[in-house]
Amino acid sequence: MESALVDVFDMNCPSRAVMEHLSSRWGVLIQVMLLREGTLRFSELRRAIGGVSEKMLAQTLQALERDGIVRRVVHPVIPPHVDYSLTDLGEAAAKAVNTLFDLIGDRWAEFEKAQVEYDQRKAAQPL
Amino acid sequence: MESALVDVFDMNCPSRAVMEHLSSRWGVLIQVMLLREGTLRFSELRRAIGGVSEKMLAQTLQALERDGIVRRVVHPVIPPHVDYSLTDLGEAAAKAVNTLFDLIGDRWAEFEKAQVEYDQRKAAQPL
Repeated sequence: MESALVDVFDMNCPSRAVMEHLSSRWGVLIQVMLLREGTLRFSELRRAIGGVSEKMLAQTLQALERDGIVRRVVHPVIPPHVDYSLTDLGEAAAKAVNTLFDLIGDRWAEFEKAQVEYDQRKAAQPL
Repeated sequence: MESALVDVFDMNCPSRAVMEHLSSRWGVLIQVMLLREGTLRFSELRRAIGGVSEKMLAQTLQALERDGIVRRVVHPVIPPHVDYSLTDLGEAAAKAVNTLFDLIGDRWAEFEKAQVEYDQRKAAQPL
């Protein structure tokens, strides 16, 4: 049952910020990578996600941890290390995001075709 | 079957840009609104999506049209008007995004609880 109080289309609703974290550039990649791999360290995540900076990865993980999507576990060993994994809520979100990833992979030819046709239409238009 | 050539985790793969359009701040809202409403004019979309500027809405629609997600139809009447709707590919993408929206609505209490607990943990930490 959807809460009547939550409306992502309302820019002042706190759910809007959560949606923006879940669908953020790095947020989607983190979710799907953790869905595939289970548990990863910060350095492993950074290597797995092409192009992410240390700062953006840390910021995004923090937002996802606060929203209850990512679980952060600090192991008090020497040197200390930190593991990231999905919560139960995070797994549900990651599965939805993964559907989008699969769609892009499965139907990539359609995306490419649309882009080529769009560019041809634009090129054919009078200036 | 997922194409082995498409890897969203590779920042140089063209699928990365498509993923960024599909999961962009305004892109997710446009997809779900069109999934719910079917066909909308530009001005109707703008009213329905709280906080979007005319420029960002136009840019996002253009990217989604190029990717084959959104269909743009110009009606040559006086004054002319333009309709936006989802393609078949766009409907599949929008359904995945909608799953995320439903998750946020259905499990909002869990998101809120996680945020409160995170903030309490942070406040309790020594400076």
